[in-house]
Amino acid sequence: MAGSTFGNHISVTTWGESHGEALGVVIDGFPAGLKLCAEDIQLYLNRRKPGQSKFTTARAEGDEVEILSGVFEGHTTGTPISLMVRNKDQHSKDYGNIATAFRPGHADYGFYEKFGRRDYRGGGRSSGRETIGRVAAGAICAKLLKELGIEVFAYTKSIGDIKISEFELGERDLNPLAMPDAEAAGKAAEYLEACMQSNDSAGGIIECVITGVPAGIGDPVFEKLDAKLAQALVSIGSVKGVEIGDGFSVSKTCGSINNDSFELDDEGNVVKATNHSGGILGGISDGDDIIVRAAIKPTPSISRLQHTVNEAGEELDIEIHGRHDPVIVPRAVVVVECMCAIAVCDAMLGHMTDQVDYIKEFYKN
Amino acid sequence: MAGSTFGNHISVTTWGESHGEALGVVIDGFPAGLKLCAEDIQLYLNRRKPGQSKFTTARAEGDEVEILSGVFEGHTTGTPISLMVRNKDQHSKDYGNIATAFRPGHADYGFYEKFGRRDYRGGGRSSGRETIGRVAAGAICAKLLKELGIEVFAYTKSIGDIKISEFELGERDLNPLAMPDAEAAGKAAEYLEACMQSNDSAGGIIECVITGVPAGIGDPVFEKLDAKLAQALVSIGSVKGVEIGDGFSVSKTCGSINNDSFELDDEGNVVKATNHSGGILGGISDGDDIIVRAAIKPTPSISRLQHTVNEAGEELDIEIHGRHDPVIVPRAVVVVECMCAIAVCDAMLGHMTDQVDYIKEFYKN
Amino acid sequence: MAGSTFGNHISVTTWGESHGEALGVVIDGFPAGLKLCAEDIQLYLNRRKPGQSKFTTARAEGDEVEILSGVFEGHTTGTPISLMVRNKDQHSKDYGNIATAFRPGHADYGFYEKFGRRDYRGGGRSSGRETIGRVAAGAICAKLLKELGIEVFAYTKSIGDIKISEFELGERDLNPLAMPDAEAAGKAAEYLEACMQSNDSAGGIIECVITGVPAGIGDPVFEKLDAKLAQALVSIGSVKGVEIGDGFSVSKTCGSINNDSFELDDEGNVVKATNHSGGILGGISDGDDIIVRAAIKPTPSISRLQHTVNEAGEELDIEIHGRHDPVIVPRAVVVVECMCAIAVCDAMLGHMTDQVDYIKEFYKN
Amino acid sequence: MAGSTFGNHISVTTWGESHGEALGVVIDGFPAGLKLCAEDIQLYLNRRKPGQSKFTTARAEGDEVEILSGVFEGHTTGTPISLMVRNKDQHSKDYGNIATAFRPGHADYGFYEKFGRRDYRGGGRSSGRETIGRVAAGAICAKLLKELGIEVFAYTKSIGDIKISEFELGERDLNPLAMPDAEAAGKAAEYLEACMQSNDSAGGIIECVITGVPAGIGDPVFEKLDAKLAQALVSIGSVKGVEIGDGFSVSKTCGSINNDSFELDDEGNVVKATNHSGGILGGISDGDDIIVRAAIKPTPSISRLQHTVNEAGEELDIEIHGRHDPVIVPRAVVVVECMCAIAVCDAMLGHMTDQVDYIKEFYKN
Repeated sequence: MAGSTFGNHISVTTWGESHGEALGVVIDGFPAGLKLCAEDIQLYLNRRKPGQSKFTTARAEGDEVEILSGVFEGHTTGTPISLMVRNKDQHSKDYGNIATAFRPGHADYGFYEKFGRRDYRGGGRSSGRETIGRVAAGAICAKLLKELGIEVFAYTKSIGDIKISEFELGERDLNPLAMPDAEAAGKAAEYLEACMQSNDSAGGIIECVITGVPAGIGDPVFEKLDAKLAQALVSIGSVKGVEIGDGFSVSKTCGSINNDSFELDDEGNVVKATNHSGGILGGISDGDDIIVRAAIKPTPSISRLQHTVNEAGEELDIEIHGRHDPVIVPRAVVVVECMCAIAVCDAMLGHMTDQVDYIKEFYKN
Repeated sequence: MAGSTFGNHISVTTWGESHGEALGVVIDGFPAGLKLCAEDIQLYLNRRKPGQSKFTTARAEGDEVEILSGVFEGHTTGTPISLMVRNKDQHSKDYGNIATAFRPGHADYGFYEKFGRRDYRGGGRSSGRETIGRVAAGAICAKLLKELGIEVFAYTKSIGDIKISEFELGERDLNPLAMPDAEAAGKAAEYLEACMQSNDSAGGIIECVITGVPAGIGDPVFEKLDAKLAQALVSIGSVKGVEIGDGFSVSKTCGSINNDSFELDDEGNVVKATNHSGGILGGISDGDDIIVRAAIKPTPSISRLQHTVNEAGEELDIEIHGRHDPVIVPRAVVVVECMCAIAVCDAMLGHMTDQVDYIKEFYKN
Repeated sequence: MAGSTFGNHISVTTWGESHGEALGVVIDGFPAGLKLCAEDIQLYLNRRKPGQSKFTTARAEGDEVEILSGVFEGHTTGTPISLMVRNKDQHSKDYGNIATAFRPGHADYGFYEKFGRRDYRGGGRSSGRETIGRVAAGAICAKLLKELGIEVFAYTKSIGDIKISEFELGERDLNPLAMPDAEAAGKAAEYLEACMQSNDSAGGIIECVITGVPAGIGDPVFEKLDAKLAQALVSIGSVKGVEIGDGFSVSKTCGSINNDSFELDDEGNVVKATNHSGGILGGISDGDDIIVRAAIKPTPSISRLQHTVNEAGEELDIEIHGRHDPVIVPRAVVVVECMCAIAVCDAMLGHMTDQVDYIKEFYKN
Repeated sequence: MAGSTFGNHISVTTWGESHGEALGVVIDGFPAGLKLCAEDIQLYLNRRKPGQSKFTTARAEGDEVEILSGVFEGHTTGTPISLMVRNKDQHSKDYGNIATAFRPGHADYGFYEKFGRRDYRGGGRSSGRETIGRVAAGAICAKLLKELGIEVFAYTKSIGDIKISEFELGERDLNPLAMPDAEAAGKAAEYLEACMQSNDSAGGIIECVITGVPAGIGDPVFEKLDAKLAQALVSIGSVKGVEIGDGFSVSKTCGSINNDSFELDDEGNVVKATNHSGGILGGISDGDDIIVRAAIKPTPSISRLQHTVNEAGEELDIEIHGRHDPVIVPRAVVVVECMCAIAVCDAMLGHMTDQVDYIKEFYKN
């Protein structure tokens, strides 16, 4: 089926394989008139680029974005924005038994059963490189959100057992683990070094905070704002869990604590005394900060010998060569941020037609 | 925006408010030829009906389903199946200050900001009664899945701190808390009694196991099988978190443990040695049991005095009268089951066109 | 597949069979705050009701609409509007060989091949009664359009060879053929009487004029406003052709004639000197009246003996008993009007998010 | 809104502007395992290339397609197929007053009103070059259809008043007007020469015949096979009318003539004695040849002085320089063919899940 598109109003379609000619995205339905240049997008792509620290692969990926359509005279035109990043690394090499064996923890077996064939080069479509399209699209949505006073900010909340205990906004971009807590980042680095020495990998949790979303955004049933955020986040490879607000801990609390009281601030605006809800009630934003978390599994590609089965139906042991990130989390931070930006941007547009009065006001001239 | 529809191949559209004339669902795209009668659906609806124990509201809801279209001579016809349940309780009563005050923990404020008005009777569209349409649709999908050898089974995993420690399939339907562990159910009942005595409410976790799904179902990118399950589950009111397989605990484990080895069983089928993945890798089923969990928040309607704001922008204290379930979990079990059934059924249909060989085989005659 | 839904922003899903329990429609995504009561809808449904002249079937169809959801305190709430009309005529009777024979000119054979079974009672889902849902939805869209200064007006342009030569707006509702030309209506009535006497049926052309649509509505590629209107009209049973503006005659004209010059009116507004385009250029409204036409085939149910094949693969001659409209056109006029109203209403909503400036203006408070 | 995507199962998204960097298409949901190389697509693109006769523009467009993703080891992989054609002609030149004036017969004014700005270079997104993406996608769909025994064949039926009177399949590709009738092609060429001499342009009619579609394809309501074909065809720029089978002439015939009798052929297959229906009844294929027609307006770009208005709200006369096709029809033939191929291919996939028996058969192993 056709499953490479996300969004109801802004429609984001990614394409491309890890070692194919190129990867890209088409963003259809994006409004006309946003000032946009390649640098706006490149800034976000650079945050997911490998080779930036010892915790990320050394693969030389330039990942330079090219705007192919939808921008004219420095502004979006309202027509599909097509963005492309050429793969530099797509030339064939010998994949050995990886070409036919199903790597544990990867989608290889599922792909083979689904499609009857698969592009085994670097995981093909299931590669983390697919997220290039998401990040490019998210960069544009984030820019539009900024013009509406909305900021989307994700960061590493934990790696293995090491959790941040402080939150210093500026710190996130200063350490290679995207943690807004220098001390925790230091400990996490040690933990990762140990993982690497034992040819193993680690997982972690990414948190994303979205500020400035007015109350009333989202939809009451299947397209709840949190339901779309959940789809958006779990659609990122390696995500195995999602929480909104207090998340799983709500299962152990009481209603009298979990219910956030409404009150008025000094300017008479409706605000909440607490934010257990994570900014969303009944699928609709309640005006508070939106807070979501995603649990990321350890990188499945590890250098250890692993037992598996191949396409011929034989058991075998495989070794995955090459250098792989010992942890996916830091590079996935910008992907989480971008998927949230797309989902929120889409919902913001959806709200504009919710009331007859809005429509009459719009067309009155 | 139009957000009351779920599913790409089987399209499920729910409608209706808590105290309106009726609630219902239209299931479009459902294949022709399934034997179906009202009893098949009623059986599922009865599982979510209130008034079945002291832990569920006493409201007299008959919730009898009527098949209005799409079934002829005892079989589905391939045309939209329209199902309706009349509300018996829709007559107006005095809602007091609830009619204009935003109940904490509820969607009232969001609805008001979104639509500029709201049906305040029992929460209107945001009521748990909206799930009647989901359950009715899920019952039909579950019946089709059974014909394909797929079983969907949900149950209460925990309420508050009390977690099941055994799994006895038959026990789930013997206690009012839908726990497959009689002892845990007993303890949970005591905990709930205490909650009720202090005019408070509790949360919990629901787990759903789906057996018999072949490998290869789902999609690699935005429509990943787990992403759709996540959307499906978070779209249920009160769900604040979702996990697939090992869920959030993957953040603390290592790749060498988390990766499930592939091996061959005695008949030469590809199987996995463990199931940390919860049956889904890279968004596609891996042939193992699919395991998902949803965290449910405590019932927001509690009899305690609560502080809030009303539509006129005034702070006030409200008391929510009437009897409410002290815990949503037991009645939500069948809703979780049904949303999973819809999502999996939809993905099963999607796979049938994944390969040119399938299409040529289908049309060869 | 799921094909009973139309519309991108306002999503209209019809359901029901000719002789099932009921027929209806769910309108999701309709904005909150439109004043609406059952009479608003009934007025339109009455225009398609049979039994109103000797040219329409005598079947006693009350076709009374019931609003089941989405309206509260006399206004739309933004949640799905569910509308239902009970069938009075659904009790089983003896359909004779019609139950298994494929009626010429009908969808019977296609349905049987598609679904492997079919509801043979009155055509089931392929009956003209399916349009009840469209008309009910269209009535609501037309009401919203009126508030925006947009009028949708359809009428019979021709029946057989008899074409209107005058256009008197008020006349349409005075004759049973929905012709805005009393003299043509008289001649057409004579032609139809002759058809009926020879147990035959007639076709015709319906024209629809939509006034008040501002320039800039629609989309440049697959969702062109005229492409959606074409889909909307051909989706009505018996429509075999569609024209926009000058339609097929453009094939014989020259660019210098067919191009409409732009000019300024007295108030400085951009207007066109002519309207060969029918109000749509490149899929986007040009501010002029939108003009579309649909060609309707003769009623396929005729009392003559007809040769055909049945489900058992036998040739046979069948006679279709009962009284049928000798012409579909007059009752289809309101269906054309309603499908146009839905398509235009949907496009009007779509335009509201086309520019960043619109979004910033909307959210500036 | 997002309107650049077509298809429910195979999802075709075009992007690109006439004078932007490139144009292209993403085909998502296309089944895995079709043998495919760039030449398969280039063959179709060459048929729409300009500069092939004196009736098409001399613009040097190489229009060489590049496959960027979705094909591996010579076969489609089931993941999005991304195709791109670089524009060679995108360098800025002086567009004079065309940059701000609304060309009569073009979408300029609508674009400006819709988006508040427009890419004036060659019409931008509304250029005929947008169809490059459609043709590339259609070539792939046509190749799949051929494997199922389905042929899609379009040709020029008429130009101005000159209509074909013979049908010689092979002749279509021998004359520059794509007419399967050499004599008519000769006369049409003379007519076009006259048009060109008077700085004018001509219109025409394209017919498309689709053979080999089994009965049962399509859907009964809004997604009728002919409704989708109508949308597909009217979505091509310059199409102002569409007919299925007898089209507009049904308005003048009688039911006894228009109804096609069913009968059995020598092998006992259900066939029709006539084909007034054009192969579709009630939105579903009836097993006969599918026949559709599209009316194409005269090229709006003509060298004569034309009166219009500009963005500043001033009336002016403009002259459109450069050489333009005096008729769009011949180059649009392959576009019509490709849109039909996409629509039919999509519907073929849709049918595979129509019956429970199909699903059980598919999953029985």
